[in-house]
Amino acid sequence: MATTKHTLVALVDDKPGVLNRVASLFRRRGFNIDSITVGQSETPNISRMTIVVDGTNTSVEQVRKQLDKLIETVKVTDITGDNIVVRELALFKVKTTSANRSEVIQIVDIFRANIVDVSSDSLMVEVTGDEDKLSSLLKLLSGFGVKEVCRTGRIAMTRGTIAESGRRTSRQAESSWDR
Amino acid sequence: MATTKHTLVALVDDKPGVLNRVASLFRRRGFNIDSITVGQSETPNISRMTIVVDGTNTSVEQVRKQLDKLIETVKVTDITGDNIVVRELALFKVKTTSANRSEVIQIVDIFRANIVDVSSDSLMVEVTGDEDKLSSLLKLLSGFGVKEVCRTGRIAMTRGTIAESGRRTSRQAESSWDR
Repeated sequence: MATTKHTLVALVDDKPGVLNRVASLFRRRGFNIDSITVGQSETPNISRMTIVVDGTNTSVEQVRKQLDKLIETVKVTDITGDNIVVRELALFKVKTTSANRSEVIQIVDIFRANIVDVSSDSLMVEVTGDEDKLSSLLKLLSGFGVKEVCRTGRIAMTRGTIAESGRRTSRQAESSWDR
Repeated sequence: MATTKHTLVALVDDKPGVLNRVASLFRRRGFNIDSITVGQSETPNISRMTIVVDGTNTSVEQVRKQLDKLIETVKVTDITGDNIVVRELALFKVKTTSANRSEVIQIVDIFRANIVDVSSDSLMVEVTGDEDKLSSLLKLLSGFGVKEVCRTGRIAMTRGTIAESGRRTSRQAESSWDR
């Protein structure tokens, strides 16, 4: 069966050991987690995890159910097929010289990324977007030499609200820029 | 002894089970991980983890050394005292009505955040910055009702380069905005 990348959102208690439990659950079933991101949720003492795993629909649904059964779990949703906003944040430290600095700045501007630090031989770039946008920018900057890369992994949220009819009512804001 | 928040950067093999090992190492020593973020690094097949933990200098140094001994670990650095850039990404879904939407948009603009989705009764906001900036914005938006929060946890990178004299040569770019 064909495997696809699934995005799971889990609301879990913010307690020591929870990450460990979640990680071992995936480990025992032989999944390699593509990315896992943990942060605060809208509820105090509840963390929100965004987990990206590769697997068949059946196997991911099984692991989702097991995750849902953990005592620390509030709720787990597979939002893969939904209309979602996907974002990742990255910092890149790029080698620069006085000769090529302006060229790097041009590329950074085109990607609507920001320069957050500058030294005599490097620039630090902050960029937000989907994984493809980040990887495209990284590829372009690799020509200059990238000394350090730090990425957060994916976070995701379903768009807007579902009207009573079940039809989604949101639309993507025009200010957003998905390359 | 006083505990402080430490930021560890670990370069580890991108293999199944590594996250599980790292999480259990902290768990066994009784640390609650404030945030852990895993993403690609500058080297293929090597992931970069940013781990924020609360502890005394001595206890964090001990766990850092243990982490360094794991076979999957390439390098672990405690960058707490260094001159670093710290960033986090968040998505907030805010309840809005036609009456208060423009007020929400004003606040979002002041924080240089972006609106990435809009529906009849909500806006989705994307914001990047240090934890304090994100929390300040969230607090302001809470007045309108925040339906969903998703945060990546901290990523961090040391600024610029260290000159031979040992003095740092970088300066913070003026375009960055640390509230």
